[in-house]
Amino acid sequence: MTGTVYLVGAGPGAPDLLTLRAADILGRAGIVLYDALVHPGTLALAARAEKIAVGKRSGRHSTAQRFINKQLVDAARKHAVVVRLKGGDPLLFGRAQEEIDALRSAGVAFEIVPGVTAASAAGAELGISLTRRGVARKVAFVTPRAGAGEPTNEWASSVAAADTAVIYMGAGLAETIARELARLGVRADTPLALVENASLPGSRILTGTLEHLARLAGSLGSGPAVVVLGEVVRAAQAAGASLPARLRPLLKRA
Amino acid sequence: MTGTVYLVGAGPGAPDLLTLRAADILGRAGIVLYDALVHPGTLALAARAEKIAVGKRSGRHSTAQRFINKQLVDAARKHAVVVRLKGGDPLLFGRAQEEIDALRSAGVAFEIVPGVTAASAAGAELGISLTRRGVARKVAFVTPRAGAGEPTNEWASSVAAADTAVIYMGAGLAETIARELARLGVRADTPLALVENASLPGSRILTGTLEHLARLAGSLGSGPAVVVLGEVVRAAQAAGASLPARLRPLLKRA
Repeated sequence: MTGTVYLVGAGPGAPDLLTLRAADILGRAGIVLYDALVHPGTLALAARAEKIAVGKRSGRHSTAQRFINKQLVDAARKHAVVVRLKGGDPLLFGRAQEEIDALRSAGVAFEIVPGVTAASAAGAELGISLTRRGVARKVAFVTPRAGAGEPTNEWASSVAAADTAVIYMGAGLAETIARELARLGVRADTPLALVENASLPGSRILTGTLEHLARLAGSLGSGPAVVVLGEVVRAAQAAGASLPARLRPLLKRA
Repeated sequence: MTGTVYLVGAGPGAPDLLTLRAADILGRAGIVLYDALVHPGTLALAARAEKIAVGKRSGRHSTAQRFINKQLVDAARKHAVVVRLKGGDPLLFGRAQEEIDALRSAGVAFEIVPGVTAASAAGAELGISLTRRGVARKVAFVTPRAGAGEPTNEWASSVAAADTAVIYMGAGLAETIARELARLGVRADTPLALVENASLPGSRILTGTLEHLARLAGSLGSGPAVVVLGEVVRAAQAAGASLPARLRPLLKRA
């Protein structure tokens, strides 16, 4: 017998931002292979499962990815329900395609359970919509993180072409981001916000403009963070402390 | 007393793609104002709530939006828990900002509960990741739907700059989309998929290339549909019928 591998999005952080479907599948799982950023409260839903931590926060090696691929195929030969649990949505910057390809090659049935991506949680934390009629109808999600041999700046053109951009895994590359965007003519006074640990109790919001990005990023902690860039951020800055406290654990103006 | 308004994402369609948090809030709601595309099974979770249908499938008038804004403010004066339930994620093409602004102006507390957006569900249905290391690190979400007086083609530059684009509410504008993208130099043989009713039992997938868009769109039914465009779609086309049946209710090649 061969089981089914479920590539499941754990959502942005808070355990209750998991989907009902994901919670149900976790409850039936025989084994869960999970990423570093998955909340313990989410893992606890897989009460009967063997739980295996895989992956790193960033810069995971391809050898490690190949090992995960093999683990998934092997797990499907032993368990009816195998869960590969990834932070956010598995199809956005989750390296899911490498695992999908491995499962297809091995003839293992799989199913993708989409999740809430970090950009949506960051917008919720900021109290703003990422789109706005007449202002923002083009949203880009990018990452400046490149694999070995990949160019490090090809992400930038998409940010420049968008009304709203959400940059994933970019806080550690703030100077590069600011430089590349300036080179493409993105205005230094473009409003931006950094959101760290979106949806979690320790969330933080730092706002300013593109020219402040490197300094703001230097004030972040070690939690996962996204950069939200564009005119829509102005509504969060204007609202400032008038937002409900629960939405704005720590708001700092640049 | 004034209640709190929760702007809640109902997810892409299937009731079990709702988040646990959204389910909890619906169970406590005194009133729910919901969009046309919300599943009856999702509404049923709001067992004790008065339920009011608002909004149209598309082309909602601004007068209607102003009336919704007023209804939300009024509801918060009568109920402790008011839910504004929107398809997908409320912050992506959900016109949430207009409602947020109205709530802020009226001094009504609000909270955003992010949801799974249609693009993630479409990728799940196709069995592909929207990003792929070395191939796709720039994802654009756009809509060609414009309000009165707005330009109808400014969305296209973002699609041209992205590796993967998901076009929301675009199936009815297929000819315009194909023409504008061709004008910007997007290749006629760029792989694409149309996904209708993603995550629902009646979901449909049609695949081809950009040159087939108008013809494919003509074969769609009346359900909500997104267009997924880019090299990542090739993996879905190559896998074809070898995908699990549950993932691929109806696959047609162009």
